[in-house]
Amino acid sequence: MAKLLGKVQIGVSNRHIHLSKEDLATLFGEGHELTKIKDLSQPGQFATDEKVIIVGPRGAITGVRVLGPVRKATQVEISRTDSFALGVRPPIRDSGDLEGSPGIVVVGPKGSVQLTKGVIIAKRHIHMTPEDAANFGVVDKQIVSVKIPGERALIFDEVLIRVRDDFYLELHLDTDEANAAAVGNGDWAEVYG
Amino acid sequence: MAKLLGKVQIGVSNRHIHLSKEDLATLFGEGHELTKIKDLSQPGQFATDEKVIIVGPRGAITGVRVLGPVRKATQVEISRTDSFALGVRPPIRDSGDLEGSPGIVVVGPKGSVQLTKGVIIAKRHIHMTPEDAANFGVVDKQIVSVKIPGERALIFDEVLIRVRDDFYLELHLDTDEANAAAVGNGDWAEVYG
Repeated sequence: MAKLLGKVQIGVSNRHIHLSKEDLATLFGEGHELTKIKDLSQPGQFATDEKVIIVGPRGAITGVRVLGPVRKATQVEISRTDSFALGVRPPIRDSGDLEGSPGIVVVGPKGSVQLTKGVIIAKRHIHMTPEDAANFGVVDKQIVSVKIPGERALIFDEVLIRVRDDFYLELHLDTDEANAAAVGNGDWAEVYG
Repeated sequence: MAKLLGKVQIGVSNRHIHLSKEDLATLFGEGHELTKIKDLSQPGQFATDEKVIIVGPRGAITGVRVLGPVRKATQVEISRTDSFALGVRPPIRDSGDLEGSPGIVVVGPKGSVQLTKGVIIAKRHIHMTPEDAANFGVVDKQIVSVKIPGERALIFDEVLIRVRDDFYLELHLDTDEANAAAVGNGDWAEVYG
């Protein structure tokens, strides 16, 4: 094991969807605005009251939460467990990197869209500011390892560092990863590089 | 990282249930015999054509496969992902260690049972014979680490060694663990101790 660089708290991402302005209008009606119900830890990001159904060739998942604000492109983030239930094969990707990813049918209360791309499994990553990066001694896009203690102790390799002025220091895992390690929101992990 | 002891192939366990003779009769009818559809890698164990519905306070999961042969006590093995959907809080346990575990409602075509215990999340483990154990230099109940390469590379600590004459050498992970590592049946892992 390499050198301990610091500690981070864990944020677990459940399946969710980011919508383009156009897809929001199709799914929820022309002129519909997202209804914020809770700020997320990353500044400017929020959970909304809106939910959709996502439908793949093998199955559907209801109650998929829409996150705000609207984005340039619609993006569906699911776990690998979900991907088997839906019958899709998404790549493991950094947010926003959607080229070559599969599509899916998204159904809202006022309409549906057939995405031609946009379904990904999020690559595990740590958000941090440039100041955090200096403290940890890492740079944007660096790959580090993260150790999680406990009954299902494990070490995640292939953890992506993401540095931006407006990021809040946090390790993001999806539900498969959090459950494999038996951890939840606010638990602590050690970063090694 | 400690010393490389050897390599094992991975077997992924989806949610399943083992039934007692009595519960089998209640769920499928008096005198009903399990219908084998496929031998499993562990000698004597088999998948059956029978499926049940398991129902917790928060949700139900349909199509839960019954594994044979019948056992002394009914045991339900689910993932931590499943546990949230069902609304139960099972402990992480070795197979057969059911004291203090929660119950659940099991529904079959001919009846239902309210288990008072028996729901667990399986502790990750490696089955092996005494000869395998000698080759690896480990003993029954020892805890080792397992390294999995690839896009979601990780190291599982807290992996239990289980030694018995009739075991077949294999690392058993549940679906959360396999999906967190992006691996499947037959993939290879390295054992460190």
